[in-house]
Amino acid sequence: MRKVYMDHMSTTPTDPRVVEEMLPFFTENFGNPSSHLHSYGLRAKKAVDESRAKVADLINAKPEEIIFTFTGSESNNLALRGLALANRDRGKHIIVSEVEHYSILYTARELEKEGFRVSYIKVNKDGLIDPEDVAKAINKDTFLVSIMHANNEIGVIQPVEEIGKITKEKGLIFHTDAIATAGVIPVNVTELGVDSLSLTSHTFYGPKGIAALYVKEGTEIVSIIKGGAQEGGLRPGTDNIPAIVGMGKAAELAKTEMTSRIEHLIPLRDKIINALPEKIKYLHFTGHLTQRLPGHVSFWISFAEGESLVLFLNYKGIAIASGSACSSPDLQASHVLTAIGVPPDVCHGSITVSLGKDNTEEDVDYFLETLPKVIDRCWQMSPLYEDEMKKELT
Amino acid sequence: MRKVYMDHMSTTPTDPRVVEEMLPFFTENFGNPSSHLHSYGLRAKKAVDESRAKVADLINAKPEEIIFTFTGSESNNLALRGLALANRDRGKHIIVSEVEHYSILYTARELEKEGFRVSYIKVNKDGLIDPEDVAKAINKDTFLVSIMHANNEIGVIQPVEEIGKITKEKGLIFHTDAIATAGVIPVNVTELGVDSLSLTSHTFYGPKGIAALYVKEGTEIVSIIKGGAQEGGLRPGTDNIPAIVGMGKAAELAKTEMTSRIEHLIPLRDKIINALPEKIKYLHFTGHLTQRLPGHVSFWISFAEGESLVLFLNYKGIAIASGSACSSPDLQASHVLTAIGVPPDVCHGSITVSLGKDNTEEDVDYFLETLPKVIDRCWQMSPLYEDEMKKELT
Repeated sequence: MRKVYMDHMSTTPTDPRVVEEMLPFFTENFGNPSSHLHSYGLRAKKAVDESRAKVADLINAKPEEIIFTFTGSESNNLALRGLALANRDRGKHIIVSEVEHYSILYTARELEKEGFRVSYIKVNKDGLIDPEDVAKAINKDTFLVSIMHANNEIGVIQPVEEIGKITKEKGLIFHTDAIATAGVIPVNVTELGVDSLSLTSHTFYGPKGIAALYVKEGTEIVSIIKGGAQEGGLRPGTDNIPAIVGMGKAAELAKTEMTSRIEHLIPLRDKIINALPEKIKYLHFTGHLTQRLPGHVSFWISFAEGESLVLFLNYKGIAIASGSACSSPDLQASHVLTAIGVPPDVCHGSITVSLGKDNTEEDVDYFLETLPKVIDRCWQMSPLYEDEMKKELT
Repeated sequence: MRKVYMDHMSTTPTDPRVVEEMLPFFTENFGNPSSHLHSYGLRAKKAVDESRAKVADLINAKPEEIIFTFTGSESNNLALRGLALANRDRGKHIIVSEVEHYSILYTARELEKEGFRVSYIKVNKDGLIDPEDVAKAINKDTFLVSIMHANNEIGVIQPVEEIGKITKEKGLIFHTDAIATAGVIPVNVTELGVDSLSLTSHTFYGPKGIAALYVKEGTEIVSIIKGGAQEGGLRPGTDNIPAIVGMGKAAELAKTEMTSRIEHLIPLRDKIINALPEKIKYLHFTGHLTQRLPGHVSFWISFAEGESLVLFLNYKGIAIASGSACSSPDLQASHVLTAIGVPPDVCHGSITVSLGKDNTEEDVDYFLETLPKVIDRCWQMSPLYEDEMKKELT
């Protein structure tokens, strides 16, 4: 059976060129860079420095502005909590959007318990934030704004650059979660006007277990994990050298190949977007149809449960996602879908198709051919669909 | 030139058998276990479950008592902070030892700022904690005790089992940092009587970037990083699957081979301990000479700076450590050496030789033959040594 992986927002395979680069750092150059008085440690330290420069280069930052962490969620935690605690003398009011990732939203909730006040910016039905709404939410006590670059569930790219202009004018600290975009589309910290930015390796064909936080030179931040001097004391703990090397290589490849990857993905994405409404009744796209990630298609279908769809497609060899891979700890309906007005009863049932650089037109054709059959099967199982059919027949 | 790596407390090479087990999880079975509705995610989830069982088995825990984290420092932070915050209604007084790792000590300092009180238990000149001192430090407000299993710098194994009896009797929560021991010597959470225990993969030939925290069933703990539902919400962020698989394999190998590894290491260690005083003047061992880790030798030498020794030995192909690999963020003298009464001016200059399973008797012979020459060279550079020689000659 044909195997088609279209869940690249959840994670990507590690590029074999990346794995090759990592391998010597497991068994030969296995040193700990904190022990750099001997050659084992020194080689590891050199590898970390080189990788840091490559990651910095991907987002137009300086190497010394890159802090390696272990996951994107950790980067977001370090950013929001670390910036809030280090700059609490500047204010008590924080602005985030209501479609942020859980790692931002739950950190914001914690900060609320600790005396900060948080405003949650709404999105329109296309999932877009209006920069004017951010401007309006700013008051004298505001010191920190966190708006994601693109949303993993609905693929929408937010107007971060315009928001960056507002925060700069008001002298606020601005963080963006670029986990869905860095390494995928051009991300330039200067153009975006951000003071900090989260990125993770495994969304652009790098290994899991390694991520980074950009923190603009001169921005005050404190660590959330305490201990040794690694990463300037901002992330204590033994560095994951093979993964750091892998993230560097993946960043280098992402930069070199970005244009060709995007040029490959957009036509495939648009082929799906254009074909679906013809093939499937009761289809509802989610998120803005053009201001979105190059390989990202998301939608929901009346009377067809998302999880069943994912399961049935899996039997046909196709891997896609229902909702976010980072499930809510409290198993509530997706806050992102709720935010764009999707009825709560289908909020568990949305579909995210995220294409990757190795997907082919044949993959897309197989998906487009298989999906209607599978949806039909879901409908046959749905009493609500039966009711709807009866209504249509009368 | 002969290459001899004797810095296994800093990190170990990843066992090739472990790397082999990890490899398919980079490029083939690369799924995200949070996306377990399709086969890619499901295979990853299965691999995590299997690895969790192996890690649990290493320390006689149940799989559901294992939380994967990314570093040992993170496990210690999660333990001390997570247990303190979750159980603050039980008391405000915490007991730690003064030779704990920075990840415990600096977390304790943070908790002090937040209203907890912390007692720091002293060690004797051999680096040992007297369980009676722990008993004496307990008061009505005490609820949490954290004492490390073995110290990385001076190799001493603490009487955790006896302390565990005291904490159990008093109904206190007891955490131990077993980063230097788990996978190296037998560690059994039931016998130790602990409620939580930190371990990390890269100290027993597993990969870097993965660690674990054992938390006894029924023990209340809260996360320090907020976000998704991974690890029961206690460690949000995409799982590092290849590393988790690697830690599981390393744990399995450590369990199977532990006895033979120990039987190989103790004679090599003791050969060094017995030979050094004959070969080197002004030698001062640190830490108890028998109640210590199997491959661990530590000492300092008057008039010879530790860092110079490490550098000179590196020129001869030998990698050892001066002090801890996890350097203090404030670059102070080692708190461990200060605690056992080493004069502050030599506290930067101690030596840790940590042997590993692949070190041979030839390695040890080469080290024993090379060290006196290198020390001699250090002495020739030291004005203090010159003064001492003059004194001896008069």
